[in-house]
Amino acid sequence: MDENIARLAALDKERTLLSHIGALLGWDQETYMPRAAVDERAEQLALIEGLAHEKAVAPEIGKILEELESQDSLDPLEKAYLRVCRREYDKETKLPSSLVTEMARATSLSQAAWAEARKNDDFASFAPHLERVLELNRQMAAALDPSAKAYDVLLDLYELGATEASISSVFAVMKADLLSVLDKIRGRPQVEDAFLRKKVSAAAQEKLNQRMIDVLGYDRERGRLDLTAHPFTTSLGKDDVRITTRFLEEYFPSGLFSTIHESGHALYELGLDLGPAYAGTRLSEAISTGIHESQSRMWENIIGRSKAFWKRLYPDLVSGTEGALEGVGLDEFIRSINKVEPSLIRTEADEVTYGLHVIVRFELESELVSGRLRVDDLPGAWDEAYKKLLGIKVPDDARGCLQDIHWSMGAFGYFPSYALGNLYAAQFWDAMKRDLPGLEKSIEEGDLSRPLGWLRKNIHSKGSAMSPAELVKDVTGETLDPKHFAAYLDGKYKTVYGY
Amino acid sequence: MDENIARLAALDKERTLLSHIGALLGWDQETYMPRAAVDERAEQLALIEGLAHEKAVAPEIGKILEELESQDSLDPLEKAYLRVCRREYDKETKLPSSLVTEMARATSLSQAAWAEARKNDDFASFAPHLERVLELNRQMAAALDPSAKAYDVLLDLYELGATEASISSVFAVMKADLLSVLDKIRGRPQVEDAFLRKKVSAAAQEKLNQRMIDVLGYDRERGRLDLTAHPFTTSLGKDDVRITTRFLEEYFPSGLFSTIHESGHALYELGLDLGPAYAGTRLSEAISTGIHESQSRMWENIIGRSKAFWKRLYPDLVSGTEGALEGVGLDEFIRSINKVEPSLIRTEADEVTYGLHVIVRFELESELVSGRLRVDDLPGAWDEAYKKLLGIKVPDDARGCLQDIHWSMGAFGYFPSYALGNLYAAQFWDAMKRDLPGLEKSIEEGDLSRPLGWLRKNIHSKGSAMSPAELVKDVTGETLDPKHFAAYLDGKYKTVYGY
Repeated sequence: MDENIARLAALDKERTLLSHIGALLGWDQETYMPRAAVDERAEQLALIEGLAHEKAVAPEIGKILEELESQDSLDPLEKAYLRVCRREYDKETKLPSSLVTEMARATSLSQAAWAEARKNDDFASFAPHLERVLELNRQMAAALDPSAKAYDVLLDLYELGATEASISSVFAVMKADLLSVLDKIRGRPQVEDAFLRKKVSAAAQEKLNQRMIDVLGYDRERGRLDLTAHPFTTSLGKDDVRITTRFLEEYFPSGLFSTIHESGHALYELGLDLGPAYAGTRLSEAISTGIHESQSRMWENIIGRSKAFWKRLYPDLVSGTEGALEGVGLDEFIRSINKVEPSLIRTEADEVTYGLHVIVRFELESELVSGRLRVDDLPGAWDEAYKKLLGIKVPDDARGCLQDIHWSMGAFGYFPSYALGNLYAAQFWDAMKRDLPGLEKSIEEGDLSRPLGWLRKNIHSKGSAMSPAELVKDVTGETLDPKHFAAYLDGKYKTVYGY
Repeated sequence: MDENIARLAALDKERTLLSHIGALLGWDQETYMPRAAVDERAEQLALIEGLAHEKAVAPEIGKILEELESQDSLDPLEKAYLRVCRREYDKETKLPSSLVTEMARATSLSQAAWAEARKNDDFASFAPHLERVLELNRQMAAALDPSAKAYDVLLDLYELGATEASISSVFAVMKADLLSVLDKIRGRPQVEDAFLRKKVSAAAQEKLNQRMIDVLGYDRERGRLDLTAHPFTTSLGKDDVRITTRFLEEYFPSGLFSTIHESGHALYELGLDLGPAYAGTRLSEAISTGIHESQSRMWENIIGRSKAFWKRLYPDLVSGTEGALEGVGLDEFIRSINKVEPSLIRTEADEVTYGLHVIVRFELESELVSGRLRVDDLPGAWDEAYKKLLGIKVPDDARGCLQDIHWSMGAFGYFPSYALGNLYAAQFWDAMKRDLPGLEKSIEEGDLSRPLGWLRKNIHSKGSAMSPAELVKDVTGETLDPKHFAAYLDGKYKTVYGY
């Protein structure tokens, strides 16, 4: 290994250690921390973030990067690592610390204001905070790249290489595909799913979900499952990736599919192995939120809502759900967990309408960032978009433009990842089926190590060495093409709805 | 507040934040961390410890201390804080970092060797490690104070102001007292306690113990109870002090009294409140391990093994122990949890013989540190001391001089705290009874806020402002006197054994 690369990796690893420590502080806060500890915990987190930032912008890193950029003896992985480090170093050093501090302060206030506004259905009280956070995002984009469009700079933070134009063109195709599937379904009788709302105790769900992570091959020596208000995945170490879920006693699929979803994220994080030399470096990190989401969606939806997956597992599910599924056959169950119905809330949406929820947010946030849409006009624009795209009347802002936390956190450019995740996942799935003959049969037989092995080899082990576009090309032989997702949906819903 | 004191406190608080973060890393490692994370966790801990040390030895602190020492405008609390900071700053700066690193390395190896040696009853394999750790302790003592006796310097690290001479004289009296009680008991029939060994499931014990911490007034908003291999208390924040316990299904009092013991430690930590200006500073820390132990012993033994304490609680205990206590009356139960019997293992010893176990260790470790006792001769000396003091034949080193982890961790001078804790507790108890008429009646009625309030006001809220000797004088009006413990034991065992 090149000596400069090794020095860079050593510095990088200290930053990673701090970031993992910060992750433990965050995980504990959501799981086991006693309530009164919250104030000091905020100080502990701020201290660790500050120390991690100091490590990330150390002038020594800048010097090493310059030296490396004038070397031409690097191997391809070393070059990739250099690229990643340069990108991140520039990002961290270009942002004035006053802006970072102000952003932290403003988003903290704004999140609290958002929670209050959503509770009281009072958009007006949130509007000035949203305005402020938007302005800081514009300043951030200008600091990072004054020559680019602000929204493009923000998008790039989550989905490396994505631009408003590239996403618009992909989403335009996806929109037509989704509307076409919706249209076919509309003429068919709705599927029955009332039995999914029968009560299943949290204790029974705990058992089911703990068994599920074993089924998925999520190694308990390197992770664990706990309960929190909102499910998440977090990396506390390269061998310590934890997930959380929650149980709704009157709708057990919520917890179950959250667990599978988060397991997908965790399996990706646990598979980010580029060899011991790069362990704990930025090269061994996820390349984008969209690729991350493709992993959770692959397990939750493509595999987790398939008949093949449940064929062997279904009897256990029936006996583990306290009678809720008594007399419900496998086909009926599969139909019920794939029910499609336009609805108000993104996080509860099915696979077809989900993309439409995302398109609404993508279009509105790009207009908010550019200033073409005024904050005060957001509720009206939101309601209009929902009516037009989903055919749904939004009854109030709490269930409208105030439903998601993202904007209050200052995350503009994040939402597209969710839909990109679906597109990537379907394209990867087609490649996987091509590479692994008899894949669905293996899944039917309970052998999930084949798909996991393929994901590890082709996606996880690439870490940040390739951009999302390079990765998709490398794995599938094509550029990103929504047709895979369209074909996947059409195949599935033809069966579910019999159109 | 003095401006320099405020600057000092601000620097001090950053170190405390790091130390609390380190405590979370440690707590998580013992409770919920997945196994494979252990290697990276060690790196995370080392990084945080290094950062905390850097904060503690910052030259700016040295400058502020010097300025403060030439001021004469400080109020008594400011003076106390200055004293504490000077003491700790000198300690942290006097130790060469090479010695600290070598000590960390040697004790890590030595602990592993100890665990192995104990498992195989192979003292010889541990001896060279013990030799090395002893030598490093001597070097540490010399670095801290070359003019003092090494063992005195080490003792002072745990029990501020204690010397071998002062402890010897107190222990000589205590030894006579303990042997006298033992002698009186020896002529009496042994108490019955077989029912304590009836099986009680871990689930039932979990409920009992969770209820117990509520009974003791341990605030769940500021702490929690979890399970670990060995019980401990740890401070993760000024409002976040957690305890752990363990359950032996075939001896439920083990977990129950561990929980009460650790709750006593936690109540002390949670009561270290010297006002908001000193929150998170060294002034709001425990003054010594002996005083800390007095708090755990007070709750575990003096209160927790008394008839007054169980009078109201006993029916719940009977119904919560799955029949183990069926037909056992309150008096019989109280006798059983106060049974005295010389035994091999310190951690399982009763209140009378416990002090004798400590005396053996105190005498041997002072001789080891001075070099008067050779490491190779330790097993023989140990066995002889047990025979002489406890009348017990030690069957092997595993249950002899290898039973405790302390020496392998490099902790010489720690053991006396355990016995001092008993002495302090009994003396505090007499003062508390003097100050609170009708105290035992209150406890009988389930009002534990009276003793807790007294401990908070007289001991906890003093933090590190007074030395242990000053505190004892301040609270009880006398210097430390073993007669209080002797009288307490005599009063208790007269009833238990009817001598």
